[in-house]
Amino acid sequence: MSIGEILFGRPLRSQDQKQERIGPLPGIPVLGLDALASAAYGPEAALAILMPLGVLASSYIIPISLLIIVLLIIVSISYRQTIPAYPQGGGSFTVAKENLGPLPGLLAASALSIDYILNVAVAISAGVGALVSAVPPLLPYTLALCLVILVILTIANLRGIHSAGLAFMFPTYLFLICLSASIAIGLVKICLSPHGHPVPLVKPAVPDFTGIATAWLLVRAFASGCTALTGVEAVSNAVPIFEKPTVVLAKRTLSIIMTLLALLLAGIAILAHAYGIGAMDQGQPGYQSVLSQMIGAVSGRGVFYYVSMVAILMVLALSANTSYADFPRVCRVLAVNEYLPPGFAHRGRRLVYSHGIVILAVLSGALLVGFGGRTDRLIPLFAIGAFLAFTLSQLGMVFHWLRSREGHAMRRLVLNGLGACATGATLLVIAVSKFTEGAWLTIVVIPPFVFLFLWIRRRQRRMEKEAAADGPLDMTHLEKPIVMIPIRRLNRVARNAIRLALTLSDEIYAVQILTEDLHVRNISHRWAEFVGKPCEMVGRCTPELVVLKSSYREFFDPFLGYVSTVSSRNPERTVLVIVPELVLRRWYHSIIPHRATLIKELLLLKGGPCVAVMNAPLYVGEACFKGDERNT
Amino acid sequence: MSIGEILFGRPLRSQDQKQERIGPLPGIPVLGLDALASAAYGPEAALAILMPLGVLASSYIIPISLLIIVLLIIVSISYRQTIPAYPQGGGSFTVAKENLGPLPGLLAASALSIDYILNVAVAISAGVGALVSAVPPLLPYTLALCLVILVILTIANLRGIHSAGLAFMFPTYLFLICLSASIAIGLVKICLSPHGHPVPLVKPAVPDFTGIATAWLLVRAFASGCTALTGVEAVSNAVPIFEKPTVVLAKRTLSIIMTLLALLLAGIAILAHAYGIGAMDQGQPGYQSVLSQMIGAVSGRGVFYYVSMVAILMVLALSANTSYADFPRVCRVLAVNEYLPPGFAHRGRRLVYSHGIVILAVLSGALLVGFGGRTDRLIPLFAIGAFLAFTLSQLGMVFHWLRSREGHAMRRLVLNGLGACATGATLLVIAVSKFTEGAWLTIVVIPPFVFLFLWIRRRQRRMEKEAAADGPLDMTHLEKPIVMIPIRRLNRVARNAIRLALTLSDEIYAVQILTEDLHVRNISHRWAEFVGKPCEMVGRCTPELVVLKSSYREFFDPFLGYVSTVSSRNPERTVLVIVPELVLRRWYHSIIPHRATLIKELLLLKGGPCVAVMNAPLYVGEACFKGDERNT
Repeated sequence: MSIGEILFGRPLRSQDQKQERIGPLPGIPVLGLDALASAAYGPEAALAILMPLGVLASSYIIPISLLIIVLLIIVSISYRQTIPAYPQGGGSFTVAKENLGPLPGLLAASALSIDYILNVAVAISAGVGALVSAVPPLLPYTLALCLVILVILTIANLRGIHSAGLAFMFPTYLFLICLSASIAIGLVKICLSPHGHPVPLVKPAVPDFTGIATAWLLVRAFASGCTALTGVEAVSNAVPIFEKPTVVLAKRTLSIIMTLLALLLAGIAILAHAYGIGAMDQGQPGYQSVLSQMIGAVSGRGVFYYVSMVAILMVLALSANTSYADFPRVCRVLAVNEYLPPGFAHRGRRLVYSHGIVILAVLSGALLVGFGGRTDRLIPLFAIGAFLAFTLSQLGMVFHWLRSREGHAMRRLVLNGLGACATGATLLVIAVSKFTEGAWLTIVVIPPFVFLFLWIRRRQRRMEKEAAADGPLDMTHLEKPIVMIPIRRLNRVARNAIRLALTLSDEIYAVQILTEDLHVRNISHRWAEFVGKPCEMVGRCTPELVVLKSSYREFFDPFLGYVSTVSSRNPERTVLVIVPELVLRRWYHSIIPHRATLIKELLLLKGGPCVAVMNAPLYVGEACFKGDERNT
Repeated sequence: MSIGEILFGRPLRSQDQKQERIGPLPGIPVLGLDALASAAYGPEAALAILMPLGVLASSYIIPISLLIIVLLIIVSISYRQTIPAYPQGGGSFTVAKENLGPLPGLLAASALSIDYILNVAVAISAGVGALVSAVPPLLPYTLALCLVILVILTIANLRGIHSAGLAFMFPTYLFLICLSASIAIGLVKICLSPHGHPVPLVKPAVPDFTGIATAWLLVRAFASGCTALTGVEAVSNAVPIFEKPTVVLAKRTLSIIMTLLALLLAGIAILAHAYGIGAMDQGQPGYQSVLSQMIGAVSGRGVFYYVSMVAILMVLALSANTSYADFPRVCRVLAVNEYLPPGFAHRGRRLVYSHGIVILAVLSGALLVGFGGRTDRLIPLFAIGAFLAFTLSQLGMVFHWLRSREGHAMRRLVLNGLGACATGATLLVIAVSKFTEGAWLTIVVIPPFVFLFLWIRRRQRRMEKEAAADGPLDMTHLEKPIVMIPIRRLNRVARNAIRLALTLSDEIYAVQILTEDLHVRNISHRWAEFVGKPCEMVGRCTPELVVLKSSYREFFDPFLGYVSTVSSRNPERTVLVIVPELVLRRWYHSIIPHRATLIKELLLLKGGPCVAVMNAPLYVGEACFKGDERNT
């Protein structure tokens, strides 16, 4: 197994990708991970806003969480209706575009894209937050740890994640078990304790502040807590991956995920209140995440604590990973609709959309660096995109039912309308209350995304129009091309290219560039014997050898210059450059810069309009032509 | 001007690069910047080791600096002799390889490469250290600032730095003036004050420690301080860039640079002693670099202070930049000697060695992230590479003189031998004293580099042997190739490719892949009319249209599968894939993933040995063939 295969995996063939259908049990981890993981940062984000209230903070977390849970239920019911309406998968872009028009669709797509980028940054930074809670000496390395996890995720995704279901199942269920167990133990202790305030095993940090709860503060806390809802749309986007009865199973999975999330949020709120847990400043030494404090208070710092923290870290890292799966798919849908270049619609070597993955990694990395890898600074940017997409998607569903002639359409319209109103109102609350803390950045970034998509589509349309043609093919000027071959030695690679050239044309120039330092010997004295004579013998024209001297140790420019000269001297004819290439079938072949690729790029940029490039590959250890010297 | 040109500059043609010759005045900034900038972190590195001594630290800095200056003088004299011996430029690799053999040469090259990577990290982190000294609120953003500067430098270098001399001159001389002025004022104040300890305008931080100076501590301080010597080799590497009399001017420039550096080091040591300046912990709030404390103590926090800090930041950033110039050159020399793939020997679009630059940026970025952007953590890794290269280079010079028949060869041998002994001994001291602090990392990394170079050369040699051929060209089996053209529509782009194919072969297959979602219409009903008839009329064979259906929304695999089938059915013949391409001559053309490039990569990896790929570019707004539909 080569290093490349270890790092990036064996290239997959398209046939290898079976449409693996799943049931609710693997469906919960695969599609619910993102939503469930947000339980790890949603309540913390709300408590972080309440920090100035000190011990009072934990009293307000219960009503706030209740409101968030009500919102969650409304959104879930609303999305349950999207599933049967779009059994082929109803992403926000699709629903918004089909019912509201292309512009709202693009708005939803931009919002979602930005949210996916933010999700990577937030999930990684929250995971690292859990890690430094468990191992405090790591605190100064927060950003470095974030970037390391980002790189690992990116490599893993460029590899293509294969049996994703299995890889997701273990950590998700471990996370659910640990958190539920903590909450259950905590609830029992609360019931047993006289005043409902059990004694914590590890005392949570009680902040010294004693501010007053203003309505504004509570609104902001609610807005931050709403990040717990991100990831809710995953099931309705991915309906086709369920076994039959597809729609029933998808709806059931969505309901289970939402119930679990609601229970987790409720449990965390009750325990935070009972134990008096508040958020801490992530930049200060001694930082503990809310879940770390909670599990520590309930069960002490034993094995269970560390297992739970590992589960949280894993689930958050995997939740970042869902963006790696979803973002490239959004890019693909946009590319199919011509809002992105067609390259985004094609899969890379491991059947993944490599370009989307690289862009996602770069943008999330920039966010992590820009915000120092701290969750609390990233949260205000988050959730706007998600709630904008939610609202547009629900609104799209309202119009869908308006046009629908199904029974119950009216009832469904009302339910989706309720969802749209709830998410729309929340969106407004978030946008206003978080505006100065960073939300403006998200709001400012969305329109340029939309314009970029529109510009790309216009440009592609223009190029298509430019290329349009009708009528019969023109058959004039079908002369054979002039062939030029850059060669260094008269070895098998060059001979392979010359033989190929001989099958294509009668006018062939082999160009040798003599540079000072690259130890190349002039081959002109052997040309007549090795090439000229054999050609004469079979009555073919002899390829001409052109030797160019480069005083400047430079290969490309003399060669490109010669190609341009010949091309401009023969404006009516195509100049075909054949680049000999020795190819070793190894993973690093595509990493190493190749002359053929470089020459092609340079000729595309600088060459005349009549220059085409082809490669004449000779594979190490594989023979093609019967006439290959090795075999004669 | 396009965005790409603003960001990366206009592509340069090789002829544009004049061999600009320089004299000593621009020579000092261009070649001495790296050496002079190390005055900003060398003394600080020594003082950082002495931190446990508290106020006593500043007493020991004078003898340690003296020792470093003596070493500097020995090394300078030794390198002065390399200049006339290698007037074409005597890099460590060249000198070591020619006199000691390829293995020591590679050792020197590896050591230098690692040092160049470290230089980027150390210089940037020291520069950011100066910045956060001047603007303390920026301290938590240390790593982020480092990475931002790294990205700016990388983009600037991919652009190609043009009038480097001018850009370097201003900050270097500003730096020299500010530092000299501070030192001069400080010296005057020292002379005027009664006990030689003038009152500082801004009190430097006096650490609370009062440890005892062990010999071991002093040795470690010396080893750290030796980082001040990095960059000394620059002049002897780059002799050819001087005006005539080249050798004289180069020697003069080297002497001036070394004298300036020695004076700076001495001045900083004396002032640190007089004002009782010590190093501070870079991780703690309130951090001040040694130079920041020194300039503050001498002149207060006025305009002069801030100008000086800006000059230090600029010089350090530019000193990181010298690695960007030198590392790709080392890569190029290695590539010319076949120790790296030939791609490293070619220049990119702005006449720079792009691949080396990208690798340098990635590795330095990893170092910065790994070490949190803190100079004090990076310093122990540094200088080992430089001193290993110094030692090998001097040792090479000793052998050079041994074989030389020049007069004075013996005297020169002794001088270079002295240099080799001094740098060798220092190397040992650094390696031993810094081993546990990180030097082991450098020592561990050097051998794999050497092995990598050897492996690459062996592989290239093997491939060359594999490709070797002799005797006349084989002329059997020169049938025309089978041509395959993937097409989507019968537009100008496709027609262009078909016309090109008609000039090359009589057996042509146009392959249309119908996917579900890409809105492509079947063109078979128009094929006979638009292609078949015209071909018949001029008596050419008609290209065959093959329509393949892809149920899986996938273009590549059905096409590649068809190519493989045809190729394996015709094992004796070449299959030529012509990829139609619509090209817009814009900078982003090479960023957007192209079908032609992807198909070529995929066919190289998966295609049979007899498959060649060519592109048939159609340029937007430019016509090639007279027969282009637009013009008829």
